[in-house]
Amino acid sequence: MAERVLVTGAAGFVGRALPAPLAALGFEVHGVGRGDTPPGSPARWHRANLLDEGDARALLRDLRPAVLVHCAWYVAHGKFWTAPENAQWVEASEALAAAFAEAGGRRFLGIGSCAEYADAAPGDGAPWPETRPIAPATPYGQAKAELHARLARRGLPFAWARLFHLFGEGEHPDRLVPFVARALAAGREAACASGRPVRDFASTRFIGQALAALAASGVEGAVNVASGEGRRIADVVTLLGEAAARPGLVALGRLPDRPGEVPFMVADTGRLRREVGFAAPAEVEADLRRLVAAVARDP
Amino acid sequence: MAERVLVTGAAGFVGRALPAPLAALGFEVHGVGRGDTPPGSPARWHRANLLDEGDARALLRDLRPAVLVHCAWYVAHGKFWTAPENAQWVEASEALAAAFAEAGGRRFLGIGSCAEYADAAPGDGAPWPETRPIAPATPYGQAKAELHARLARRGLPFAWARLFHLFGEGEHPDRLVPFVARALAAGREAACASGRPVRDFASTRFIGQALAALAASGVEGAVNVASGEGRRIADVVTLLGEAAARPGLVALGRLPDRPGEVPFMVADTGRLRREVGFAAPAEVEADLRRLVAAVARDP
Repeated sequence: MAERVLVTGAAGFVGRALPAPLAALGFEVHGVGRGDTPPGSPARWHRANLLDEGDARALLRDLRPAVLVHCAWYVAHGKFWTAPENAQWVEASEALAAAFAEAGGRRFLGIGSCAEYADAAPGDGAPWPETRPIAPATPYGQAKAELHARLARRGLPFAWARLFHLFGEGEHPDRLVPFVARALAAGREAACASGRPVRDFASTRFIGQALAALAASGVEGAVNVASGEGRRIADVVTLLGEAAARPGLVALGRLPDRPGEVPFMVADTGRLRREVGFAAPAEVEADLRRLVAAVARDP
Repeated sequence: MAERVLVTGAAGFVGRALPAPLAALGFEVHGVGRGDTPPGSPARWHRANLLDEGDARALLRDLRPAVLVHCAWYVAHGKFWTAPENAQWVEASEALAAAFAEAGGRRFLGIGSCAEYADAAPGDGAPWPETRPIAPATPYGQAKAELHARLARRGLPFAWARLFHLFGEGEHPDRLVPFVARALAAGREAACASGRPVRDFASTRFIGQALAALAASGVEGAVNVASGEGRRIADVVTLLGEAAARPGLVALGRLPDRPGEVPFMVADTGRLRREVGFAAPAEVEADLRRLVAAVARDP
């Protein structure tokens, strides 16, 4: 019999990328969110407010999933970095993990962030391993690190996926990639900063596959889930201009750089590749091109 | 003053991809081969037969390179797996490394192969780390493993790059990628086997960058130099068909599978990414598409 997996936040930016690859791995996939069934999702849908502990507990008691992938969080664009909701989600997520274990759950997968890591550390300029010091500079990063620490103290079998820089379907239009892609599709100039910082970009398509593989594996603890590849933001934006056949509209250096930006932020994906055994290609450039084509069809 | 690097086999399939990224890292780049200066190479060119120890010694004494990237080998398509020339190149390469050290050389980078590794080992299905058992099944793999062992016994500072599956400019037309790309460009059917095996494909453009970074680093010993990504051969071939807008000409399953093919052969690139600090994207799909476009322009 197929094992049952529950994805929280399954209509969200990351969560929506999970059901298809989980189903492909043989899971019976259930999704939960506050709203209606997202169109086209292969998950069986449940409606619940996970900030309500009773709601969460009732769902888990009914469903008794073997695996839980916890993508739900407060993610309002721009505001999530400092919002008080981060603290609420720490409490709700710890309660969720406890209720999941009580309901016979076998494996919990939490979603962490590169924002948990120290901005500067010895060896900088090379990809960041999971052993990099934890020193979050933002309330969002602090909340994720706090939840990770609490889950570790509980001693339940769990993995903790640290995500880096994502792009993909359903992304907020003011974030870098859709902002530039939509400006270009409309024939407007896309004003950017210098784009010098190097980041680990990956599509939610790829990250969804990697998270599904991690969920299906027995690997425990923190695992960077990212492409492992470093790209200058300028190279990403230039590629979007080229893919849209509007390279002249990409205005690098038009906006000022933010002071204190971390120059290099790339995941060491050794654990994901070797211990999880996840070998699928990141195909970042191809996914960026697909996104540009989708925006051109439906701006 | 820029450090001097000498690339052997610098007109060859791998070697030609080295001068540009080495120059970008600030090296003064010299190349050596048996023939004339390859057109467009940014290397200062030297002509020598490295199988002649006197020739090799004279060149190193004149040039006194600080770094040597040794790409030269016997590589005749199809024949190199079993050719007696493999043993000759073990001797010549060891002599070259010794002469390089005598001439004041600082760092030797040898080119090894995934063919050095055991075809089967515990943990199969996950990427292959450098600690995988060495058990070459072919004379080519045996010769590379033997040279690695001899260099290690000499105690000189050296790194040993194990390459996986390459494609790119200057590739023999009977190898998989150019064979399929050229058939499609000519409107001919490209007959393939099932394409089920998973391989670590990477372009020589990307591998050249990675080898240059390894040459410039202080990392010693064996390092897998590869994309770290697993693709079914069928997916690569299907992508070529799609990129050429001739998907119907890709005839998977038309040829019999070779018996005993290793099902999964993908590099663990943790050392390359983390210790060398090489974070550039592999962009395999984009490079395959560029290759298809180049073949369409100049079949």
